[in-house]
Amino acid sequence: MPLAPWRSPLARALHRNRSRADARYVQLATMRPDGRPANRTIVFRDYLPDTNQLQFAVDRRSLKIEQIAHQPWGELCWYFSDTREQFRLLGQLTLVQEGQDDPLLDKARQVLWQKLSDAGRVQFSWPEPREPRAENEAFHPPAPDPNMPLPQFCLLLLDPVEVDHLELRGDPQNRWWYGRSQDDPTQEIWSVQAINP
Amino acid sequence: MPLAPWRSPLARALHRNRSRADARYVQLATMRPDGRPANRTIVFRDYLPDTNQLQFAVDRRSLKIEQIAHQPWGELCWYFSDTREQFRLLGQLTLVQEGQDDPLLDKARQVLWQKLSDAGRVQFSWPEPREPRAENEAFHPPAPDPNMPLPQFCLLLLDPVEVDHLELRGDPQNRWWYGRSQDDPTQEIWSVQAINP
Repeated sequence: MPLAPWRSPLARALHRNRSRADARYVQLATMRPDGRPANRTIVFRDYLPDTNQLQFAVDRRSLKIEQIAHQPWGELCWYFSDTREQFRLLGQLTLVQEGQDDPLLDKARQVLWQKLSDAGRVQFSWPEPREPRAENEAFHPPAPDPNMPLPQFCLLLLDPVEVDHLELRGDPQNRWWYGRSQDDPTQEIWSVQAINP
Repeated sequence: MPLAPWRSPLARALHRNRSRADARYVQLATMRPDGRPANRTIVFRDYLPDTNQLQFAVDRRSLKIEQIAHQPWGELCWYFSDTREQFRLLGQLTLVQEGQDDPLLDKARQVLWQKLSDAGRVQFSWPEPREPRAENEAFHPPAPDPNMPLPQFCLLLLDPVEVDHLELRGDPQNRWWYGRSQDDPTQEIWSVQAINP
């Protein structure tokens, strides 16, 4: 799969904002089963190898799992503070859970688990999210095995079909729109256009 | 209207992150008419006086206008970098356009227009958003009258019904959930609970 044309400006933004620990923090909008939107911060964990799909680590016990099962579309909003630019990525979501049939996706889930820090991994064995606050000791379980993903751990993929890139720093601002052709979903054919902000 | 109980931790976060110009930047998720979510960065512009409703300045020509007409619910995701905390505010959206009947809302729209900077106001007379990029000169129209809002200028209100506050810095993290009673929508009765992150 060739790199999509928005990969290069996004890589540049990540590079230029690399001094900030939160340059990889991005907001994901999904739809609740009742039709109202939901929104939360998640952490970008590189691309699925040989694709333009973005990877995220998510907990099977979080509400977005049910939301994505209902409506497998999401939009990421990624704001870079230092360079004052925004990327919006609309795409289809895929959840990769334990027992995944596709060996490539199963492998990708394993690899991401291994790449997490101990502190990142242990959160998946914390007490049930959104329940009344448990005692502090419950948040200090033994460190999970780095080679065996917990069943709570899921890999989430977002496969973009539209990307909107806005640079606030221009005078006037600059904005580009990248659209993926719907003609042949097995190939990725992208167009790009400079548009009014 | 008494201050909702989440106002105090949110005010504290705004204060502690005040050195950052983008502490007031927040991501708003809405739903597209086709049922897919949308997400973009907007700027918080204080509360509507004597309410707990958050104000934003939006352009009538933006796609969120149609989205909000279809589905008047949104969720804000507000991440504060310096203090490493997140607020998620789910609420009902109200658009206040030119020719608003309610005199209080019409006044609020006027006041927000006056408070915008010249650079903020002039964006509402820029060329049509999302059209092919216009010549640079088209982005330098005369400054609009600070006392007469352009018809493109809308006030957007978000009236929260649920607020989820997550502090990443705790060990473990701290999380609180604020819910507004549905019993009597003319009053605001909130409950708060410490929950698992």
